[in-house]
Amino acid sequence: MDHFRRKLWTIRMDLSGRNLLGDAVCCRVSSFNHSRISGAGYSTARQNFNAAGGTINRIFAPYCVYKGKAALSLSPVLPTFSKLESGAGLKVDRHGVMMLRFWPAIGERKYDWEKRQNSVFVAFLQLFALSATETGSLISLGSKDSCEFFHDPSMLSSNAGQVRKSLSIKPHADGGGYFISLSVNNNILKTNERFTVPVTAAEFAVMKTACSFALPHIMGWDRYTNNQRHGAEESPSKVDKQILDLEWDK
Amino acid sequence: MDHFRRKLWTIRMDLSGRNLLGDAVCCRVSSFNHSRISGAGYSTARQNFNAAGGTINRIFAPYCVYKGKAALSLSPVLPTFSKLESGAGLKVDRHGVMMLRFWPAIGERKYDWEKRQNSVFVAFLQLFALSATETGSLISLGSKDSCEFFHDPSMLSSNAGQVRKSLSIKPHADGGGYFISLSVNNNILKTNERFTVPVTAAEFAVMKTACSFALPHIMGWDRYTNNQRHGAEESPSKVDKQILDLEWDK
Amino acid sequence: MDHFRRKLWTIRMDLSGRNLLGDAVCCRVSSFNHSRISGAGYSTARQNFNAAGGTINRIFAPYCVYKGKAALSLSPVLPTFSKLESGAGLKVDRHGVMMLRFWPAIGERKYDWEKRQNSVFVAFLQLFALSATETGSLISLGSKDSCEFFHDPSMLSSNAGQVRKSLSIKPHADGGGYFISLSVNNNILKTNERFTVPVTAAEFAVMKTACSFALPHIMGWDRYTNNQRHGAEESPSKVDKQILDLEWDK
Amino acid sequence: MDHFRRKLWTIRMDLSGRNLLGDAVCCRVSSFNHSRISGAGYSTARQNFNAAGGTINRIFAPYCVYKGKAALSLSPVLPTFSKLESGAGLKVDRHGVMMLRFWPAIGERKYDWEKRQNSVFVAFLQLFALSATETGSLISLGSKDSCEFFHDPSMLSSNAGQVRKSLSIKPHADGGGYFISLSVNNNILKTNERFTVPVTAAEFAVMKTACSFALPHIMGWDRYTNNQRHGAEESPSKVDKQILDLEWDK
Repeated sequence: MDHFRRKLWTIRMDLSGRNLLGDAVCCRVSSFNHSRISGAGYSTARQNFNAAGGTINRIFAPYCVYKGKAALSLSPVLPTFSKLESGAGLKVDRHGVMMLRFWPAIGERKYDWEKRQNSVFVAFLQLFALSATETGSLISLGSKDSCEFFHDPSMLSSNAGQVRKSLSIKPHADGGGYFISLSVNNNILKTNERFTVPVTAAEFAVMKTACSFALPHIMGWDRYTNNQRHGAEESPSKVDKQILDLEWDK
Repeated sequence: MDHFRRKLWTIRMDLSGRNLLGDAVCCRVSSFNHSRISGAGYSTARQNFNAAGGTINRIFAPYCVYKGKAALSLSPVLPTFSKLESGAGLKVDRHGVMMLRFWPAIGERKYDWEKRQNSVFVAFLQLFALSATETGSLISLGSKDSCEFFHDPSMLSSNAGQVRKSLSIKPHADGGGYFISLSVNNNILKTNERFTVPVTAAEFAVMKTACSFALPHIMGWDRYTNNQRHGAEESPSKVDKQILDLEWDK
Repeated sequence: MDHFRRKLWTIRMDLSGRNLLGDAVCCRVSSFNHSRISGAGYSTARQNFNAAGGTINRIFAPYCVYKGKAALSLSPVLPTFSKLESGAGLKVDRHGVMMLRFWPAIGERKYDWEKRQNSVFVAFLQLFALSATETGSLISLGSKDSCEFFHDPSMLSSNAGQVRKSLSIKPHADGGGYFISLSVNNNILKTNERFTVPVTAAEFAVMKTACSFALPHIMGWDRYTNNQRHGAEESPSKVDKQILDLEWDK
Repeated sequence: MDHFRRKLWTIRMDLSGRNLLGDAVCCRVSSFNHSRISGAGYSTARQNFNAAGGTINRIFAPYCVYKGKAALSLSPVLPTFSKLESGAGLKVDRHGVMMLRFWPAIGERKYDWEKRQNSVFVAFLQLFALSATETGSLISLGSKDSCEFFHDPSMLSSNAGQVRKSLSIKPHADGGGYFISLSVNNNILKTNERFTVPVTAAEFAVMKTACSFALPHIMGWDRYTNNQRHGAEESPSKVDKQILDLEWDK
């Protein structure tokens, strides 16, 4: 399992003053995101790089659900933008996602740890990144509905099928709430991990409301705003008034 | 009841120009929040502390429902953030809540008051702070559903069970609207207070819409925005392009 | 009808380039709002008064529905705030509303007009201001539900009952859409005006979505934001950490 | 088909590094929007013209759905505002829309292209601009409902009926998802184009949520905000307090 240790998310265990172990795991995982992997692709927040070099201003505010055997957290990952060649605007470069994290609720002393500048290992932390459309599935799930998503990173190559993750959301038999399960099937290592977190109706309502709020943001649509930041004047006279109805421009 | 008086929220009675007594109570309670308890934990608004020392800019805009025997108000309490050790971002420190306040509709002259720098006592003002998940319950309540929450401040100590609060939301028998009740059971003082405020379907629709709006804010998710405040340039080239898919980083 | 003319909203008729008469009525009514009644109470937009004296920056973007006999428009009127005596924050002074305007679809040449610095008269323009709770009724209206609101400006005085307005929203018999009617009963003038605008399901969906969006704004809750405008640092250390749980402060 | 070529949207084919052909089409169409038609009426984003002349800051973040035979994209087009004659505020000049684009999924090599400063032709790209009310239809569509919209650019002239577009949204027979079809009937050229894109329930949930988010923005209602940009002080004392209730001003 050494290769896991080298690459796994490491955290700092803070054993003072925290009610729930998972809370430390949750926050410190987020801390680690930044310190270990600078400029990481799927960050938990939008990355602000100042052209002059310095500050990064990231937000770590995941919604966490802790249950007996496992825990999960949910937070948005905003898209990145790049300038158009013409220099006239920005387009979405990498789409945003809703990031789900799963980890087992192992006792404190059973965590493997390697104290290396405030870091310890947490085994078996798994991520699942919901696209906008998969988030749409979650938002529109009825109280009796299920959904399932399959991710394979080598989908378009010869390695397809070697590692596969699937996320399923299934309703409780007695109504009210869901089981959210993540399976990771690794055909190379012959391992199969599975996390299941039961989520109450109230907790799922939070996830649904939060996802509905975040969806336009991960799509980049909060940039479509009538509230100018730069105070530019409205100059509709500059609009070529002969191009009135581009819906018909043929 | 002296110990109540020392610790209770005190308000300034403004008897001029207000249509409803509760309105004065509502606003002045909010005023008091600030003047009596500086930097109080659960404020009715977000606290802005300027590093250089000075201004506080709090908002008092509760949604109030006044009925024959009691009144309630609802307002969001935003989370507080703290810097990560690495200095690279902010994490949620204290989670936000939806604060419910209950008070009895006693006649003006029956209020005990002690004029001490514009303050008077109001007996029996009770608070109940809904977490994000409890707010999720409220938002997802169907027209025939109930929900109930129990709070015990000494939950994890030897004083557990001495003081307990419970909030229940139950539908009217004839459909349309709910009874929102707060009970405070104090085993030390042998007291039991109960407030019940009947809420119409329209009033509950306001509470539901307002809570859906506020929920991402009390979770801190309005910080996940693509609209930069500092005008930092987008520099996706700084992103380590080899770390393209952290969903699979093992 | 002279007293109507003196007090009525006056508009400027712009007969060039507008497809629908009502459109001119709609926009120019809004123009008039500003020029005739400076600092008017129920404006169609939030009033920004610069402490140094000058600029007003109001928005006129009503949603208009034009039908055969009458038209209506809907727009939010934001609340006003005032400083607390302690100077530590702002409270809501006058609550916001959703303003409905009704006017008859009379032919252009039948409008009485008096050209006085770009103004003409429109008879019978009627307003109805929905409170937050009445807006909650509209938002939660099912496809078979009705609601009705009664306003009497002299409600608490000896003039009660002299002028009364009522707004009703009733579903179409054949499903899909509603009739929105405004009645104004004036016992002094012995007049009774009634406007009825049939609204399709799609138009009502716009009104419902727009009202759900606007409701937290007319309540002032968009001020509860984690996104600081002044760049103040987060200083949770200044929070009195002993006041951890004000829910229990007694 | 030359007249098509002269007027059609042209794109730059970027054959490197894109997973889906449609992705290039989608983004580059957006690029073209800006470079070919400066100040175009229905842009994919709000146009910021700095009074001093220069920068344009447009956003291209369409939501794209790619299927076997055709693809569609959805993005908001914000309204334009103009100053009131009195100079006291802004009114909506041209209303915003939700822009739908359809194009066929033809193989890469079959695209006609004419490399002219990073531009190639795409045949048969069709637009359909949903008004606020038509967007209301889409948002309120039940799982078994259909809707259909007809656009004729020459509606009010003698050319009525020569070119007509219609958009229909029909549910799948087996529940879950819709067929979104655009038909363009050109009586002059005797052509009839038809695009049909099957959309899953999850994809439609994204469109519904995104449209609900965008609707107040295309109406201009995000300008009704209590959060001042210019830091103006609240001065309710300047409000003419005698004009307290304009709901009754007659």
